[in-house]
Amino acid sequence: MSIYLGEFLGTLILVLLGDAVVANVVLNKTKGNNGGWIVITTGWALAVAVPVYIFGPVSGAHFNPAVTIANAAIGNFAWANVPGYIIAQMLGGIAGACLVYIHYKPHFDATEDQDTKRGIFCTAPAIRGTLYSFIAEFIGTFLLVFALLGIGNTKMVDGLAPVVVGLVIWVIGLSLGGNTGYAINPARDLGPRIAHAFLPIKDKGHSDWGYAWIPVIAPILGGLCAALLFNGIF
Amino acid sequence: MSIYLGEFLGTLILVLLGDAVVANVVLNKTKGNNGGWIVITTGWALAVAVPVYIFGPVSGAHFNPAVTIANAAIGNFAWANVPGYIIAQMLGGIAGACLVYIHYKPHFDATEDQDTKRGIFCTAPAIRGTLYSFIAEFIGTFLLVFALLGIGNTKMVDGLAPVVVGLVIWVIGLSLGGNTGYAINPARDLGPRIAHAFLPIKDKGHSDWGYAWIPVIAPILGGLCAALLFNGIF
Amino acid sequence: MSIYLGEFLGTLILVLLGDAVVANVVLNKTKGNNGGWIVITTGWALAVAVPVYIFGPVSGAHFNPAVTIANAAIGNFAWANVPGYIIAQMLGGIAGACLVYIHYKPHFDATEDQDTKRGIFCTAPAIRGTLYSFIAEFIGTFLLVFALLGIGNTKMVDGLAPVVVGLVIWVIGLSLGGNTGYAINPARDLGPRIAHAFLPIKDKGHSDWGYAWIPVIAPILGGLCAALLFNGIF
Amino acid sequence: MSIYLGEFLGTLILVLLGDAVVANVVLNKTKGNNGGWIVITTGWALAVAVPVYIFGPVSGAHFNPAVTIANAAIGNFAWANVPGYIIAQMLGGIAGACLVYIHYKPHFDATEDQDTKRGIFCTAPAIRGTLYSFIAEFIGTFLLVFALLGIGNTKMVDGLAPVVVGLVIWVIGLSLGGNTGYAINPARDLGPRIAHAFLPIKDKGHSDWGYAWIPVIAPILGGLCAALLFNGIF
Repeated sequence: MSIYLGEFLGTLILVLLGDAVVANVVLNKTKGNNGGWIVITTGWALAVAVPVYIFGPVSGAHFNPAVTIANAAIGNFAWANVPGYIIAQMLGGIAGACLVYIHYKPHFDATEDQDTKRGIFCTAPAIRGTLYSFIAEFIGTFLLVFALLGIGNTKMVDGLAPVVVGLVIWVIGLSLGGNTGYAINPARDLGPRIAHAFLPIKDKGHSDWGYAWIPVIAPILGGLCAALLFNGIF
Repeated sequence: MSIYLGEFLGTLILVLLGDAVVANVVLNKTKGNNGGWIVITTGWALAVAVPVYIFGPVSGAHFNPAVTIANAAIGNFAWANVPGYIIAQMLGGIAGACLVYIHYKPHFDATEDQDTKRGIFCTAPAIRGTLYSFIAEFIGTFLLVFALLGIGNTKMVDGLAPVVVGLVIWVIGLSLGGNTGYAINPARDLGPRIAHAFLPIKDKGHSDWGYAWIPVIAPILGGLCAALLFNGIF
Repeated sequence: MSIYLGEFLGTLILVLLGDAVVANVVLNKTKGNNGGWIVITTGWALAVAVPVYIFGPVSGAHFNPAVTIANAAIGNFAWANVPGYIIAQMLGGIAGACLVYIHYKPHFDATEDQDTKRGIFCTAPAIRGTLYSFIAEFIGTFLLVFALLGIGNTKMVDGLAPVVVGLVIWVIGLSLGGNTGYAINPARDLGPRIAHAFLPIKDKGHSDWGYAWIPVIAPILGGLCAALLFNGIF
Repeated sequence: MSIYLGEFLGTLILVLLGDAVVANVVLNKTKGNNGGWIVITTGWALAVAVPVYIFGPVSGAHFNPAVTIANAAIGNFAWANVPGYIIAQMLGGIAGACLVYIHYKPHFDATEDQDTKRGIFCTAPAIRGTLYSFIAEFIGTFLLVFALLGIGNTKMVDGLAPVVVGLVIWVIGLSLGGNTGYAINPARDLGPRIAHAFLPIKDKGHSDWGYAWIPVIAPILGGLCAALLFNGIF
């Protein structure tokens, strides 16, 4: 399998499982309705860990432009492959979000609130404000990339690393996700936002494009800074 | 031990532990009453992982006709053993469900709602509709089989794989289980449904046979497609 | 360290951590008050796993007369050591329960309901009835011992087994614990019940001695049957 | 990297992730608001496990003066390095707490209750009283250090130990954290308390200095006793 197909399919599964856990908790009449933050964060943690198992050996399992760019910046990954990775990740994010819509179609139809429906696809801050949303996404992704590099540096028996990656995502969600909803990944936010814009969701409202740049730019910068700091001190 | 006995006992334990966690959450007066989606999904994840530890070395721990057929279709498993596996799995599902009834008998007696009681045995969609129920079971089982094959492809130290299988079940439940209740396994749904039909449950109501074919056919097709795709691209 | 000291300290820690999680959830004004079944079952799972790490190499980490007797019955453990193990386990259970009382003393004082206070020490069925309480404790311990023997039979890298033991306890609690509260261990139930009887708990009420024999006899029989069946078929 | 920088950064991440999960659960309008004890304890467990992965090979990952002193007392760690470790840990605790304030600034501004805001930084007993608060912190840290030494004594494959450390923190929180909020670490409590004192938090109220000595002295004594006992019996 090509590395790009690995990134595409891995990001597709990541977004399918991640956006779906939000759908399950927030849409009307689902069995997981009102399941709480523990359900959402556990779902997202595993939504990352499972495709890392499947596609880790194929593509290194970035599934995230911020991770790809950070690795390239410190020489862990070839710049020549960066554009292909990012395109594959974005397409995977779009495709995964479309599948979530199909999977939960009757429940989308049964839900009126537009912010709820859009919140399945892309993040939005609990309290609006550019500066602190930016900071939150920066800190979250900084920690993600710093921890991923630290884990990559650790001696670990075969098959354990994807679980540990999942633990990192879990704690970022539990601890740092309460303000912006922890996009920490442009492909996970912009991809599904694009899907939200073109999917024929009933009474869907706008796609909140004014906020869309923050979960793209802040994660990329946060990841870059983390990689440079990590490289400097380890 | 024969491979068929392994499949029978493994599926029995899977359904005993899985159906029992639903009983604990939905029946009246239980200690886990109203425990929420996190309790149900964690219980089901471990209901799979634990018998995989015990019977994995015996039978490969399918416990699921959709997994058995998918593996046979791509040459991972002998077609000659498929009928025996499916019979053992179905009988295990029936036996496990009977034990759940005995285990929670006083609480079944203390619960009036018929849908609640049937929901312990077999799945039902939160919103009725053939097409989207079929799609949901198809997608869930597709992901299950695809991930299982991916994990089987990964280098992993001894004793870790059953946990990872449990993580896959966990996330399928958390993320994709909110509409149909994620049967993703004909033996887990049809077996207990048959038990529901013959057990002397007080005021039990019908066994919802009109829906019974979906959690049989959709998982088998979803698993088949996943195996063929996996085989084609890896 | 002597094997008996290992069993004593291990059971002490098990009961301290296990009874304490119940105290945290049910006593008034605690920070975990009303934390739900997921908190209780996760706490008990880890209450077992942690002392298995510490004392596993010392004593084999039974911490449970039902496990000790079952192992002796199939020749996995010397009968000569059984009495010492059971005494150590019972004393550990008593001591652990005393520490829970000291740890949560102000919250015991702030809680009026007698059943709530006793429920921290020992189990009681949600719906009274000898037969089904017996069956529930029998099934739970059957599964515990069967799974422990299965795990002991599995090739596993160093340091993983205690986590897997914890997973078994987790699922037994989540799935099978909803009627009797899953004692599945005479030392965990009778030990703390004795502590309840002699501790100077404010307005404590009776110790429910009429029920006390069930979580002693049923687990021992359930464990025995599981060991004999396991030995017969594996 | 110097060992002191490792301790500083590790404790920083520990307090950032740990205090942040409390902020997410207790501050107004967060996405994890009212997420419950399972969210808080899972967050704290991973807040410890993740930096152990990153900095374990650098500094041994104490992140806790009580752990450092206990190890020194039994000859596992050089006394000469103790002052530097403690200073690094305290500075890490202060810095981590400052980052939490920045991360959740809009939500601090949206929350009126002063105890709630202070409770993100440092612990306070649910029921006031010196003796039992002291005992609770003593027991919690005793168990922490005893378990850490036990785990250190266990044969374990590469990469597993940090997860097991996280499990220990998890169960201490679930079981023993319900009265004082389980500081069990002077750097985790006093560091953020100092940050609370100087940070320009809106309408913040006092920093509860009268209680501050308990989560410093009790953990150190509890850890010391655990180490001496462990050393004596193993």
